[in-house]
Amino acid sequence: MGKFIVIGERIHCISPVIRAAMETHDPAPILKRAKEQLEAGATYIDVNIGPAEKTGVELMKWAVQLIQTEFDNVPLSLDTANKKAIEAGISVYNRSKGKPIVNSADAGDRISYIDLAAANDAIVIALCAKQGVPSNNEERMTFCQEMLEYGMNLGMDPKDIWFDPLFLVIKGMQDKQVEVLDFISQLRDMDLNSSGGLSNVSNMMPKHIRPIMDSIMLAMAIKCGFTSAIVNPCDLRIMETIKSADIIMDQTLYADSYLEL
Amino acid sequence: MGKFIVIGERIHCISPVIRAAMETHDPAPILKRAKEQLEAGATYIDVNIGPAEKTGVELMKWAVQLIQTEFDNVPLSLDTANKKAIEAGISVYNRSKGKPIVNSADAGDRISYIDLAAANDAIVIALCAKQGVPSNNEERMTFCQEMLEYGMNLGMDPKDIWFDPLFLVIKGMQDKQVEVLDFISQLRDMDLNSSGGLSNVSNMMPKHIRPIMDSIMLAMAIKCGFTSAIVNPCDLRIMETIKSADIIMDQTLYADSYLEL
Repeated sequence: MGKFIVIGERIHCISPVIRAAMETHDPAPILKRAKEQLEAGATYIDVNIGPAEKTGVELMKWAVQLIQTEFDNVPLSLDTANKKAIEAGISVYNRSKGKPIVNSADAGDRISYIDLAAANDAIVIALCAKQGVPSNNEERMTFCQEMLEYGMNLGMDPKDIWFDPLFLVIKGMQDKQVEVLDFISQLRDMDLNSSGGLSNVSNMMPKHIRPIMDSIMLAMAIKCGFTSAIVNPCDLRIMETIKSADIIMDQTLYADSYLEL
Repeated sequence: MGKFIVIGERIHCISPVIRAAMETHDPAPILKRAKEQLEAGATYIDVNIGPAEKTGVELMKWAVQLIQTEFDNVPLSLDTANKKAIEAGISVYNRSKGKPIVNSADAGDRISYIDLAAANDAIVIALCAKQGVPSNNEERMTFCQEMLEYGMNLGMDPKDIWFDPLFLVIKGMQDKQVEVLDFISQLRDMDLNSSGGLSNVSNMMPKHIRPIMDSIMLAMAIKCGFTSAIVNPCDLRIMETIKSADIIMDQTLYADSYLEL
């Protein structure tokens, strides 16, 4: 399975600082967050520019070149509802350190994001949902199979489709958490890769609880075969969890200094 | 499966303070540690008096009565290589809050601890080992089946045999960790209870790492169906892990205050 892959989530237009930097093409705040995340252990950096209907094409090109130039062509996840912006980002993307990730497709309105990934030899995160929250794992698996078949018909390597089980908020859907984990096991049994926005599980919880709950869910998910996640790598507890899980799953060799590596 | 059961490990003769208190029948240090563990969330208190060949009978009776009188008949795990001391402890044990635990049997020289549990309507922790470390899960399962059959022939409820998978030290046996977790899944699939001394996984690691590694292993084990562990409940990270895992596994209802409960 390999080491767990961390996609850093902190370059996101929902942050006022990042939004302002994106509007004015101000490099400093974006480079600062990229640096922090890479130093904390991120493998990929997610670049979320929001819907960006008007400015997305130029903005994504600018952001991709900015970050890759500064950080030795670090691999990126391109995250927006503006498909043309993703295409534009890929057009200037340097793939020497890894393919770009298209974030994200689903089995409904966003199925064409798989076409986009296939046409550009990219990885795609594929949300196992069509409209709203899947009601059970049978539905999740139906959507997964649909997207897998769709991508393979377009010539994609199944390993380049990273299936997102859709994590659910505990406050409201506590009784569905084990089902999500079991779906990750099903993906592993099919030898498929997975990813997803983990922190949804602790949504609406008090701030001090969130890293605790997220990290326990993440440890369980990794045991079930989860292969990557979109997380905040600057959250110490999350990275301690991932590094320790990599040891237990025998994907990195233990050293007393492993938490500092 | 129910809430995860915490067996507090801190009344152990390996501690100089506890050893001295046991030698002189000094209640204060023992009651202090029992209180701390109960306040931290222990369900059972383990009482480990060591081999105690000469003094075990009187010592175990004294300790059982001391702790149960002070703490409303809290259920106890009786832990010694002196079988007569366990029998003596059970003879004065009040089971209104739960059966005593005999700690522990194995499939080899200590198989007779199952007889002891059966004769006294007790729970027994049954180490899935015969001589040394089991070489794989096939061996673990052979020993498990031997002990299960042995206990059932004596009229025991299978649920009263808590199988210990034998956690292995990461420094030396890193590539065996997933196998241990998978064995716990096998026990769960057989609807059997489990327990064990979790902290063996982080043995010989730097002190600051141990709670981190132990808690990630524990989260993974609970997802696999682990039902109890012998741990230090005064370790905040361990208890945060157990309480969060109980939420995710839907065994306790989430409340914003769940870490304080």
